[in-house]
Amino acid sequence: WLGSWQATTVERTLPHVLRHVLDGEAFTNLARLTGESDAPFTGMLFTDSDVYKTLEAVAWAAHDLPAGDERLEQAERLVDLLQRAQDPDGYLNSRVQGDPGVPRWSDPQWGHELYTAGHLFQAAVAAARCDVLPRLVDVATRNADLVLDALGDEENPHVDGHPEVETALVELYRATGHRAYLDFARRQLDRRGHRWLGESHFGSGYFQDDVPLREATRATGHAVRQLYLLAGAVDVAVETGDAELLAYAVRIWDDLAASKTYLSGVHGSRHRDESIGDPYELPPDRAYAETCAAIAAFQLAWRLLLATGEARYADAMETTLHNAIAVSTSTDGTAFFYSNPLHLRSGHDGTHEDAPSQRLPWFTCACCPPNLARLLTSIHDYCLTTSAAGVQVHHPSAGSAVLDLHGGHAVRLDVTTEYPLDGAVAIRVETATDAPWELALRVPGWCTNWSLTVDGERVDATAPDGYARLRRSWRGGHEVLLHLDAPARTVSPHPRVDAVRGCVALARGPLLFALEEADLPEGVVLEDVRLVGLADDGSGTRPGVRIRAVVETSSQPGELYTSTPGTGRTSAPFDVDLVPYHRWGNRRPGAMRVWIPTAS
Amino acid sequence: WLGSWQATTVERTLPHVLRHVLDGEAFTNLARLTGESDAPFTGMLFTDSDVYKTLEAVAWAAHDLPAGDERLEQAERLVDLLQRAQDPDGYLNSRVQGDPGVPRWSDPQWGHELYTAGHLFQAAVAAARCDVLPRLVDVATRNADLVLDALGDEENPHVDGHPEVETALVELYRATGHRAYLDFARRQLDRRGHRWLGESHFGSGYFQDDVPLREATRATGHAVRQLYLLAGAVDVAVETGDAELLAYAVRIWDDLAASKTYLSGVHGSRHRDESIGDPYELPPDRAYAETCAAIAAFQLAWRLLLATGEARYADAMETTLHNAIAVSTSTDGTAFFYSNPLHLRSGHDGTHEDAPSQRLPWFTCACCPPNLARLLTSIHDYCLTTSAAGVQVHHPSAGSAVLDLHGGHAVRLDVTTEYPLDGAVAIRVETATDAPWELALRVPGWCTNWSLTVDGERVDATAPDGYARLRRSWRGGHEVLLHLDAPARTVSPHPRVDAVRGCVALARGPLLFALEEADLPEGVVLEDVRLVGLADDGSGTRPGVRIRAVVETSSQPGELYTSTPGTGRTSAPFDVDLVPYHRWGNRRPGAMRVWIPTAS
Repeated sequence: WLGSWQATTVERTLPHVLRHVLDGEAFTNLARLTGESDAPFTGMLFTDSDVYKTLEAVAWAAHDLPAGDERLEQAERLVDLLQRAQDPDGYLNSRVQGDPGVPRWSDPQWGHELYTAGHLFQAAVAAARCDVLPRLVDVATRNADLVLDALGDEENPHVDGHPEVETALVELYRATGHRAYLDFARRQLDRRGHRWLGESHFGSGYFQDDVPLREATRATGHAVRQLYLLAGAVDVAVETGDAELLAYAVRIWDDLAASKTYLSGVHGSRHRDESIGDPYELPPDRAYAETCAAIAAFQLAWRLLLATGEARYADAMETTLHNAIAVSTSTDGTAFFYSNPLHLRSGHDGTHEDAPSQRLPWFTCACCPPNLARLLTSIHDYCLTTSAAGVQVHHPSAGSAVLDLHGGHAVRLDVTTEYPLDGAVAIRVETATDAPWELALRVPGWCTNWSLTVDGERVDATAPDGYARLRRSWRGGHEVLLHLDAPARTVSPHPRVDAVRGCVALARGPLLFALEEADLPEGVVLEDVRLVGLADDGSGTRPGVRIRAVVETSSQPGELYTSTPGTGRTSAPFDVDLVPYHRWGNRRPGAMRVWIPTAS
Repeated sequence: WLGSWQATTVERTLPHVLRHVLDGEAFTNLARLTGESDAPFTGMLFTDSDVYKTLEAVAWAAHDLPAGDERLEQAERLVDLLQRAQDPDGYLNSRVQGDPGVPRWSDPQWGHELYTAGHLFQAAVAAARCDVLPRLVDVATRNADLVLDALGDEENPHVDGHPEVETALVELYRATGHRAYLDFARRQLDRRGHRWLGESHFGSGYFQDDVPLREATRATGHAVRQLYLLAGAVDVAVETGDAELLAYAVRIWDDLAASKTYLSGVHGSRHRDESIGDPYELPPDRAYAETCAAIAAFQLAWRLLLATGEARYADAMETTLHNAIAVSTSTDGTAFFYSNPLHLRSGHDGTHEDAPSQRLPWFTCACCPPNLARLLTSIHDYCLTTSAAGVQVHHPSAGSAVLDLHGGHAVRLDVTTEYPLDGAVAIRVETATDAPWELALRVPGWCTNWSLTVDGERVDATAPDGYARLRRSWRGGHEVLLHLDAPARTVSPHPRVDAVRGCVALARGPLLFALEEADLPEGVVLEDVRLVGLADDGSGTRPGVRIRAVVETSSQPGELYTSTPGTGRTSAPFDVDLVPYHRWGNRRPGAMRVWIPTAS
């Protein structure tokens, strides 16, 4: 599942993204600095970040690419351009360098200079870890050192309107060992919240600059900004042992989880300012639910999982990955949603690129496609972790891993599974050591019935904290089989989520399902369909969901409001198959809904 | 009711608006053209329109103001400034005149030049009709003649991004008899819909420039733009006998009425682009429902009423006036909502001026307060009409009217009523003529029981088309009493309005009612309240609504979504008084909702 998704990303998405970057404004905005283009600067102020995210994706993918592959060559061409475009002192930002009227770091609200630099640093970290694109590390560290020289003073209040550099600097510290990067990341976090950025059209809260982090109690403002900021806070907290900063991140995450998270695992209900919204304000039709917010939520939950070991963060990662992130890309890997609603209305006006009727190949603000590429090319890194205790399997996926455990002994895991389409996860464990260690297998929060066998023998395991733990000597080869029972199930919203009152959603395992117009009988309007119940007994092995439904139509079709409602008419029941939410919109355009009203 | 509202407008709102206009950027942007200010141009590109709408309000109010009143003097001062700021050839726009780099009419998408001119023309029409501010008519006609010279050619494709000049030009034609104004208005309408304005960030549909009017089938784009455009279309259709154009307006109005109108009588569900939204996309919490859209809807319905005589348009005017328009102003007349939601959530972030927790004294884009002032100072003009048949009473309001009927005989009507707080409307009719004529009294669509007496005797009248018609000789004095039974009632939404599924609203007569946090028992969260039913028998005379309610709380308060919903807990029932929707938010800040979920 993840492997084939990654393969599609490497084979289809990555060339698509590279072509758009090389043929578009992201390239020419840099090429005009070296005289290779005479086009004016166009597009968003942060088109450089599209280049960096694409390079990061190529770096993660490099181990799958043959030497001389076109994607590697295209990446080298981009690195070459960056190296030549970079100022002698290390500064690099095509928007600022290309306009002599714009001083460096003069537009902290909207300039995205540190945001863009952060993506450069992350690309360089990927290059360093994957041992490719070596010149990129030089470009990045020269730029980072300049940033620290210019803005690093303890007294300097400068922060960027868009967080991102914080987490990137911690990663660059991890990759280089240069402590000043970590210290600057910490200072960026503590500078924030003093309204230094000013109000802007959307207010200080949009930038998370209204309350100091350590005092903040609620998730606010632009969703991607909030989530990247939290990721940086966890990174700094972990590296510096700052429990207060970690508590901040957990507190805001709790606020998101309690009342500001879509069922698909993404945040952000408002189009106007791409912001998170009020508690329980979760409209499915106007969900903004930006693809980049989903990616950021996944990365944040991963950091919180590593920081705390708590399974709820892995559960959240899974929900986000298989729903909000997966839905954003077409099955062929070359078309994308910028926002990811849970309901597309009949009669929808799809002319806006942030609320189209179908996925689009590219965007005016093209942040999402290369962000997807960098996440999916590295998705294998999120499946397993090791600790002093042993190995933790968070996200089962078919494939093999060779791990070095504490104590220096090597372990090989071969995983066979079709998860999340099926709940059976087979793991062959091989190791030469006698020393006991713990294999911890996550039992997802959605799963109420599961079983575990080792070499065919039932193990009487529990998972009170979300992990079934097998501690033993694994010498020789052993077969572990985790069976997660994944019947189709209904999901109900908290009663305060007004926008989906009277509705349920259908799920199976971690996958949400959706009712799509293409599957309805001719002439049935999606908004008139009501759920009677599941059409099968819910225990079948078919990885789909079939519902029994009726059509309820108003006896007063022309009346938008009435004091004398008619009884309505109800059709004969019929069965209809839902599609996995992430697969909707890959056929003809049409209405879709995840939350289905129940029959009266 | 309307009289006291108008008095508050004249005594409180108008001075407030004049002060903000005179002390703010609307004034200095003009004063810098004459050297009386050295401030830079600031604010929206169309701040001149604030001046014009304010002058229009003063003109309508002038008959209530003593000679030498400060408001008249302030208006004269503004007219004087306009006269001096106007270019010798008649051009007048402080944004364009104040920036030599900006050619005239060079930014049709966003420049609002014809929009602004339209408000000048409307102010001049009011001045001419009320016989005040005579220099304003000269300023306006000189400007209008220049516009026609510059843009009037049959071949010129120029249209303004914001419709408004069309209806204004028809009014100016009516006031001056200058046919070229009408012809240009018609050309503006037919130029539209050919994508001449380009795409912009929001697409051609935002400007209603995607489809020619005569082919358009659905309401689209920015709500105020759509509604002003429709008003202009009706005006041109009526003056030119263009049935196709009138059919366009009726068709789009039908589309609005069927699926795109808030219960409060306003359109526009989206904050992002202030647009109307998809069919049945009517979220109460994120209702944009702009005050100016409500005013525009009222003006459009008025024009359609005059063009067709159909009571449904008068019903719509009433709903909009007493709810969406009335709610926008504080009871003291000096604070305003820009958008008018039907639900303010507990925990709402009120830092955005278009979604505050309480009404604000002024706005960055200050279009609404002066627009309210010009509407309410002229509200008496919308109550009655005359025709060859007689007199039509559309909106009963306490007061007197002396009318000249066709045939030249004078009629005096003295109306005594507390409508809409009470359903009794007493009309004393006096006339000296024997000639029979028809007194038509609108029976609102919400009213299912009503009675009519003349001089104390019951009349067996019906109102098949929404009007009870009394045709007779009215010589001498006669007392007509219309009694409209107005019990509290519930209103249900069409089942496709997902955002308020499982909810009802409460109304009494044309007034919506709202549940406000200030009226709830201590500690009760508004979102947890469920309606059991009306607390009285619904036939009382008290002009309020009292409901019986319970508090339902989730047994799993921390779970946003669950597959194992608990049974919930339900409190003992309690009674609570609702407030008329237009009165909410005049006490302490707090949550509010019009649509109340019903108890399970």
